[in-house]
Amino acid sequence: MTPRFDLYAPAPDLSAALQERLDNKTKPPGSLGRLEALALQIGQVLGSTSPEPGTPQLLVCAGDHGSLRDARGRGLSAYPADVTWQMVENFLAGGAAINVLARESGIVLHIADAGVAHDFGPRAGLIDAKVAPGTASWFDGAAMSEAQCTQALHNGARIARDIAAGGARVLGFGEMGIGNTASASLITHLLTGAPMDDCVGRGTGLADAALVAKKRILGELAAAYRGPNTSFAVLAQFGGFEIATMAGAMLGAAQSRMLLLIDGFISTAAALVAQAHAPALRHYCVFSHRSQERGHAIQLEHMQAQPLLDLDLRLGEGTGAALAWPLVRAAAAVLRDMASFDSAGVAKA
Amino acid sequence: MTPRFDLYAPAPDLSAALQERLDNKTKPPGSLGRLEALALQIGQVLGSTSPEPGTPQLLVCAGDHGSLRDARGRGLSAYPADVTWQMVENFLAGGAAINVLARESGIVLHIADAGVAHDFGPRAGLIDAKVAPGTASWFDGAAMSEAQCTQALHNGARIARDIAAGGARVLGFGEMGIGNTASASLITHLLTGAPMDDCVGRGTGLADAALVAKKRILGELAAAYRGPNTSFAVLAQFGGFEIATMAGAMLGAAQSRMLLLIDGFISTAAALVAQAHAPALRHYCVFSHRSQERGHAIQLEHMQAQPLLDLDLRLGEGTGAALAWPLVRAAAAVLRDMASFDSAGVAKA
Repeated sequence: MTPRFDLYAPAPDLSAALQERLDNKTKPPGSLGRLEALALQIGQVLGSTSPEPGTPQLLVCAGDHGSLRDARGRGLSAYPADVTWQMVENFLAGGAAINVLARESGIVLHIADAGVAHDFGPRAGLIDAKVAPGTASWFDGAAMSEAQCTQALHNGARIARDIAAGGARVLGFGEMGIGNTASASLITHLLTGAPMDDCVGRGTGLADAALVAKKRILGELAAAYRGPNTSFAVLAQFGGFEIATMAGAMLGAAQSRMLLLIDGFISTAAALVAQAHAPALRHYCVFSHRSQERGHAIQLEHMQAQPLLDLDLRLGEGTGAALAWPLVRAAAAVLRDMASFDSAGVAKA
Repeated sequence: MTPRFDLYAPAPDLSAALQERLDNKTKPPGSLGRLEALALQIGQVLGSTSPEPGTPQLLVCAGDHGSLRDARGRGLSAYPADVTWQMVENFLAGGAAINVLARESGIVLHIADAGVAHDFGPRAGLIDAKVAPGTASWFDGAAMSEAQCTQALHNGARIARDIAAGGARVLGFGEMGIGNTASASLITHLLTGAPMDDCVGRGTGLADAALVAKKRILGELAAAYRGPNTSFAVLAQFGGFEIATMAGAMLGAAQSRMLLLIDGFISTAAALVAQAHAPALRHYCVFSHRSQERGHAIQLEHMQAQPLLDLDLRLGEGTGAALAWPLVRAAAAVLRDMASFDSAGVAKA
C-alpha cells in the first residue's frame, strides 16, 4: 500500500487583500524587502490579513543509518554512528545547539526517535516513533521496506497533526542522524536530476580524500539503482527514518494548514520528497537558510526557493529554522500591528 | 574646538579562550558558520567567555534637512519634509515598523529629537537633543556650524553613556530624516573616495528621472566642496543632526564597551564618520544587514564588513538592527549555554 496525502494550496486567495493592507502601512512601499513577501505568504497560509503565528514548534527527528554500520560505508561520516543517540541524550538534557536557540526564541521543541539504533526506554520528552533500530544498509538493497517507509510517513503526519491540534500554527523541522547527508545527497540527485557529484558535500566535516571516496560510493549506488524516481520509492531506497518521518510530518502539517520552517540540507531533502508527492506543499514552506553543504543550493533551486538567511550554517538539528523564526514572527507582526498612513496621520508620497 | 573621542580595541584579548570554548561545544567545529565569528566578537566586546548581552536598546535619532526646504533640493526625496515629525509622532504612538519589530524582540526603544523642524513640546518618551529645528541648506554653505556639530556629537555620546549606565550592553542605531540618504551619499563619497554616482540611490523610492537629478545635484555639491575630507568636517558640511548624534552615540557607546548594532545606509554613514575619527570603533560594530540602497555596499566594503542579513530592506528606523538582534542573542547563547563534548558525553570526530 502506498500512502496518499492529499494537499491543496491554501484557500481562499487573500493575496489582494494582504497586498493592500501592506501597502497602507507607514513605510515606503516595498521598503521592508523580502520581509514583505514573507508577510504575504504567512497571511495566506494562516488565512488572515492579521496573522497570529502563536508559539512556534520545532520537531527534531532522529534516526540511524545501516549504511554506516556496513564496512563499505564506514568513511561516509566524520563522526561515529553512536553520536546519533548521544546527541538525542544531549537534546533531552537541553545542552545542544537547537535547545539553546529554541530557548532564546521561545520555540517549543519536540524530539522524536524515528529509528535510532539505541534503546532509550520510556523517556519524558522523547516521542517514540521508532520504526526500527536504524535502517538497513543500502549496499544490499533498500534502506527500508515499503511498509516501514509508510509507517514512518504516517508517524510523522500523526505527530504534526497532534501538534496542530494543540493550536500551533508554525512548525519547524530539524534532524539528527549520523550519515544522513549521504542519504540526502542520493535523494537530491534522484529527485532533481542534478549530477550526483554536485549533490555531495562534506557533511559534518569530511577531509578532501574522504569527500572523493563519498562521491565515488554514492555515484556507484545511484548508478546501480533501478527503481522509479518517484518520491516514496527513492525515500525507501535511500532515506533515513528521520527523513521519512519529517516528510510525513511536513505533509501532515501542511494538511493542518501550518506554516513550515524548513532547515538545511537534510530537512530540504525531506521537503523535496514531500513536494514530489504533493506539489502544493511548496505554498506552506518557508526556507530558513542556505546551508554550506554543497547540495543544498541544488535543492533550493529545484524548489525555486530563496532562503531567508545565508550564514554558512551546516549543523542541522533545525538550528537554521530556529534562527529564522524571529524573521517570521516579525513579518507577521508588521502585517498585524503596524499603523496605516491614515491611522497615524502620516503623509503619503 | 574639535571634540575628541579616545577609543581603543576591547582588552584583554580573549580570542584564544573564546575559540577554545567554542570548539568544545557539541557540534562539528565551524558548523554554526558566521554565527561563530559573531559569538567571538560578542565575547571579546563584552569581555567574557560566557557573555550576557542582556536587554538590547535601540536609539532612533530624528532630524530635518534644510536642503529639502530649499527650492534647489525639493526633488531629493519622494516624501515631503513634514513626514519626519509625523513619523516621530508615529514612533511615540508605537505604530511604526521599528516599534513593532522592537516589541516582538524585547528591544527597548529610545527616540531622540536630534534636530526636527517641529515643536513637540515636552513629551514622555522623547529625548530632547534638538540642536536646531533642522540643518541649514548645504546649497549655501555648511549644513551645521562646527559648534552645532560638536553639540550633536556630545548629545549622542551622553545619551549612549546614560543608556550604558543603566546596565545595557547592546545598542542598536536607527534614524528618521526625510532627505537623509542625500546626506549619507555625500558623506560616503567623501570618506570612502568612491565615485559620487555609485553612492547615490533611490532613497524612499525615487523614480528614474528624479534619481538622475539627485545624482547631478549631489555631484555638483561634492565637486564644489573645498573643505578637508576629515570625519567631522564632512559631517558638518553635509550631515544631518540625526547622523551627527548617531556618530557621537556610537563613539560614546563603544567607550562604554557596548556592542553596536549598525542598521542600513544612514546608520552606516554615521559609523563611517565615527570610524574615520576613531578607527577602533570597528571592533564594536555588528553590521545588521545589506540595504537595497545602492551606496550601502560601498560603505560595507570600506569598513570590511559582511552584514548578517540580506533582505533588500531600505526602510531605516533601525529596522535592520532590530531584525538582526535575535542572531546576536543566539550567538551569545551558543557560547554561554551549549554543552561541551565532555559535559554531554558525546564522542568527538
